[in-house]
Amino acid sequence: MNLTLTALQTGYRDGSLTVRQLVDTIQQRCEQTSDYNIWIHRLSQAELEPYLQHLEDVAPDSLPLYGVPFAIKDNIDLAGIPTTAACEAARHIPEQSAFVVNKLIEAGAIPIGKTNLDQFATGLVGTRSNWGACKNSHDPEMISGGSSSGSAVSVALGLVTFSLGTDTAGSGRVPACLNNLVGVKPSIGLLSATGMMPACRTLDCMTIFALHSDDAHAVLTIAEGDDPADAYSRPNPFANSPRHYGHQNGPLKLAVMKQEQLEFFGHEGYAQCYQQSLAQIADSGIELVEVDMAAFIEAARLLYEGPWVAERYLATQPYIDQQPEALLDVTRTIIGGGAAPSARDAFSAQYRLKALRKQAQAVLDSADALLTPTTPRPYRIDEVQADPIRLNSHMGHYTNYMNLFDLAGVAVPTGFTDAGFPFGLTLVGEAFSDRRLLSIANRLQQLFQLPLGAKQAEYQALAAKPSGGDLRIDVVVCGAHLEGQPLNWQLTERGGRLKSKTLSAAQYKLYALAGGPPFRPAMVVANEGGTAIEVEVWSLPSSEFGSFTAGIPAPLGIGKVMLEDGSQCSGFICEAAGLAGATDISHYGGWRAYLADRQK
Amino acid sequence: MNLTLTALQTGYRDGSLTVRQLVDTIQQRCEQTSDYNIWIHRLSQAELEPYLQHLEDVAPDSLPLYGVPFAIKDNIDLAGIPTTAACEAARHIPEQSAFVVNKLIEAGAIPIGKTNLDQFATGLVGTRSNWGACKNSHDPEMISGGSSSGSAVSVALGLVTFSLGTDTAGSGRVPACLNNLVGVKPSIGLLSATGMMPACRTLDCMTIFALHSDDAHAVLTIAEGDDPADAYSRPNPFANSPRHYGHQNGPLKLAVMKQEQLEFFGHEGYAQCYQQSLAQIADSGIELVEVDMAAFIEAARLLYEGPWVAERYLATQPYIDQQPEALLDVTRTIIGGGAAPSARDAFSAQYRLKALRKQAQAVLDSADALLTPTTPRPYRIDEVQADPIRLNSHMGHYTNYMNLFDLAGVAVPTGFTDAGFPFGLTLVGEAFSDRRLLSIANRLQQLFQLPLGAKQAEYQALAAKPSGGDLRIDVVVCGAHLEGQPLNWQLTERGGRLKSKTLSAAQYKLYALAGGPPFRPAMVVANEGGTAIEVEVWSLPSSEFGSFTAGIPAPLGIGKVMLEDGSQCSGFICEAAGLAGATDISHYGGWRAYLADRQK
Repeated sequence: MNLTLTALQTGYRDGSLTVRQLVDTIQQRCEQTSDYNIWIHRLSQAELEPYLQHLEDVAPDSLPLYGVPFAIKDNIDLAGIPTTAACEAARHIPEQSAFVVNKLIEAGAIPIGKTNLDQFATGLVGTRSNWGACKNSHDPEMISGGSSSGSAVSVALGLVTFSLGTDTAGSGRVPACLNNLVGVKPSIGLLSATGMMPACRTLDCMTIFALHSDDAHAVLTIAEGDDPADAYSRPNPFANSPRHYGHQNGPLKLAVMKQEQLEFFGHEGYAQCYQQSLAQIADSGIELVEVDMAAFIEAARLLYEGPWVAERYLATQPYIDQQPEALLDVTRTIIGGGAAPSARDAFSAQYRLKALRKQAQAVLDSADALLTPTTPRPYRIDEVQADPIRLNSHMGHYTNYMNLFDLAGVAVPTGFTDAGFPFGLTLVGEAFSDRRLLSIANRLQQLFQLPLGAKQAEYQALAAKPSGGDLRIDVVVCGAHLEGQPLNWQLTERGGRLKSKTLSAAQYKLYALAGGPPFRPAMVVANEGGTAIEVEVWSLPSSEFGSFTAGIPAPLGIGKVMLEDGSQCSGFICEAAGLAGATDISHYGGWRAYLADRQK
Repeated sequence: MNLTLTALQTGYRDGSLTVRQLVDTIQQRCEQTSDYNIWIHRLSQAELEPYLQHLEDVAPDSLPLYGVPFAIKDNIDLAGIPTTAACEAARHIPEQSAFVVNKLIEAGAIPIGKTNLDQFATGLVGTRSNWGACKNSHDPEMISGGSSSGSAVSVALGLVTFSLGTDTAGSGRVPACLNNLVGVKPSIGLLSATGMMPACRTLDCMTIFALHSDDAHAVLTIAEGDDPADAYSRPNPFANSPRHYGHQNGPLKLAVMKQEQLEFFGHEGYAQCYQQSLAQIADSGIELVEVDMAAFIEAARLLYEGPWVAERYLATQPYIDQQPEALLDVTRTIIGGGAAPSARDAFSAQYRLKALRKQAQAVLDSADALLTPTTPRPYRIDEVQADPIRLNSHMGHYTNYMNLFDLAGVAVPTGFTDAGFPFGLTLVGEAFSDRRLLSIANRLQQLFQLPLGAKQAEYQALAAKPSGGDLRIDVVVCGAHLEGQPLNWQLTERGGRLKSKTLSAAQYKLYALAGGPPFRPAMVVANEGGTAIEVEVWSLPSSEFGSFTAGIPAPLGIGKVMLEDGSQCSGFICEAAGLAGATDISHYGGWRAYLADRQK
């Protein structure tokens, strides 16, 4: 049985599955995979009972996540169950669940347990824990990636449908890549951090692991929400809401790094996977443009070499100051470095970061999203244990800049090495482009059709979603807004772009309205014997289209116009009463020809 | 002769004034006011000559700021003229003008000189300078306010039309208040900081002083612009562009602090002026709502008591480390404190600030703008010299939080004490609400009708501008979008608010269109014998109105609808061809009555 949302919902609704049956199956699977070191605390039958009883009282179709099992990284609170952050000294039993955990439980999801992590979420490897190195779902000698190690592996091995991780430097993306999962690193503040132990409070995000981008999307929609108690929480703007994917103009365009900037630290398999993935994406009709990512790479280095480690010190100060022996050696070494930097160091680094962010803007503006390797290469567990800091830093090469730059990212699997080890890419966009990135991730999953997780299920397209693109709206103009005409500035000052000069469907009459200046025509659907009219299609940012529309005087307005190719598009329409005194000029075929004739 | 933009432009264009005449007049006025300690460097005739000659070669109406004299705070570069920041050791002659200065000169403005300031822009008093304490334009025993002291006084005394200042903690607002000027503290990054010596780089803004909000607006429009070389520069969104004031819904609503949070440090005159100003504003029909500004007040304290002083240390490090005696005692004492804080202190303070900003959001959301005293009270120069740090800190009580919170502000004069000393209020809004605040400032200036500056001119309303309000657009709905009807969610999910239930003008026919569901009506202007139709007016955020419009299927669209009171408003219109098969249901008077009858 696979645990995708669709599979579970089908089973619950047709009566072939009950929540208790599912939990029994999961418990068996957990027993079989106990040597992966996934869990710090797995809920006992007694601890699960209240959730099960509650679900038995409600109808399966009454809750969006009815009976959906999930795992929680052990730096996120679940009421009544210990939180440790993989440090025994930090163990405490929270009275309340994290804001996001509460929302998921209210939606019907069942918490299965608290997962292993790199201590205090410091690491990208999954080996830094007294609960054992978390093993990779595809090859137990390899690292799982971290710090959200157990959360990733629990999804990949089919123990839960989705899981919660956290991500400061890449902890929600690197383990997704190494375990063949979708990893959503939402915009900072889209998921509340209340009830989540901080690493770097200015940069932390809660994240979602899932087998399928549609599952991740469904969970995100339930988990998100502005939280007055979290200072870093931000309301989701309408433009990033589930219904609103935007309109794609032309082929999807993704920016990729220059070849000479790629870094795989000697791993041929990942280097090959990357090139093959890009070739397949380009073959599918997605346009790839090469960009200079030097600013991103320098920012990535800033995170670990700069003053932000002082934030980790603040987050763990009670332990590191009073019980330093409670920390693993590697963790204490790294976090201990946070005592040294001065406020001047902090501000200087912020200045440099701001300059790099400004450089990065041009790259972000050049395409619908960036596309990079998620991580340069995997390592074996014993390799990382022998050289824990240097090899860990390799893992964050493509991820560390993201929260410093306030960006959103979605890691998506795109292939396997010849040895069968997972490889993936990360889509990167501006803050609050989460849904756009997820819709592009969906398109990539449909393209690659890979088996899900550790072969938990074959890929199935769950729903056709429009692919991403700018949030722009096309508008058909036929008169004073045409290029070079007197009202064209109303389009250009709003960031309007001319997309095409074309013809309408042959069903219109063109009238010159009475009055003016500005002199204005109107296109009206003919009762019979219509003509194709010369028009232009302009695209406007969605956010500016409203003020454009509101500024149009009667009798004109914005409705739908049919183009030559039969497509419908927003464009100028006219009230019938406005035609009083108007002249039929359809025989000119367009406004420009009429104006030229008038000037003779 | 007054130096408002309108007065100068009228003179230049009707030939009654030349640039050389104006400059001669200014030079005479400068001689007469030399004991005010306004200038650090006033341009000589030889230094002015290139500007004058250039202007003599072009037509007065060819440049928007043709022959408009302006002053530049001496921490902003003018090519070829020394910059000192009021510290002799920092003196250097820049090869290039600041980005903003360049734009103003290209638009025809004439730089008259570099103005006195509190050393390194550290201070709100105007007394911390080896070039002498800058005297107040209304009473030479009183402080001018600072740090942009000379820039403010030069405008108030009619030596220039406008001036450039800077503002980290209030330096662009406090001197505006004490000298009866409009002071624009733009959103961070709206004016480039290239060529401006930093104080706290994460917080600094360049500012504009003028006699009249319209003059400030004109200068802002020319001065603004994204600058690739300034990491903190941000592009101005369309919604904050000159043409776009937004639509006001209902009376303008301003938030004012609770009475018990007011602080005038014992100054009866300012306390009285404040109450009188508020009474006059309320009488004019502007709604005032009391809010709790505790979060703002705590943030204001954070600026000087927190780690941001480390930024001032970074900005002056070459001098304070190597020539500490080059600094004034008071300046060295303050800035020297920036060496102590750690990066942990810096991040801790940022966490606290973020929590306060979250609290402040509810206050900002509750009105069109906040309205506070600009500064609690003025002091005499000798009082500040006797107690320089404590009294200076009083001056920033109402200003220090603003750049920490990333807000925009406009200081506007609203009265005089019985002793004839100026008093003013500051309007506060979100980043990139600059134009909205300026339009409200304009309304206040029209309301108070005060003489300008140090009685340079009587107030004249230069242009009627719509007053401020949210950037929202009203839309008239008459069918499936009415409250409770099936498509109403398309309004509510976009933040739509029901404004009124009313009637259209008695000029429409109402049709039930063929097809559906959803069943839809259409309002069409009747050739004769129209009816008033039951409608609702909803207001939508301007940014969401576009996607709403784009989602409307043919034959409907958004045009203009006339309401009962004769006003025109965006609303649903219908193409004539769409009426095929439609039923005239005008006699019901509205869609709801028709639906009720159908259900019988």
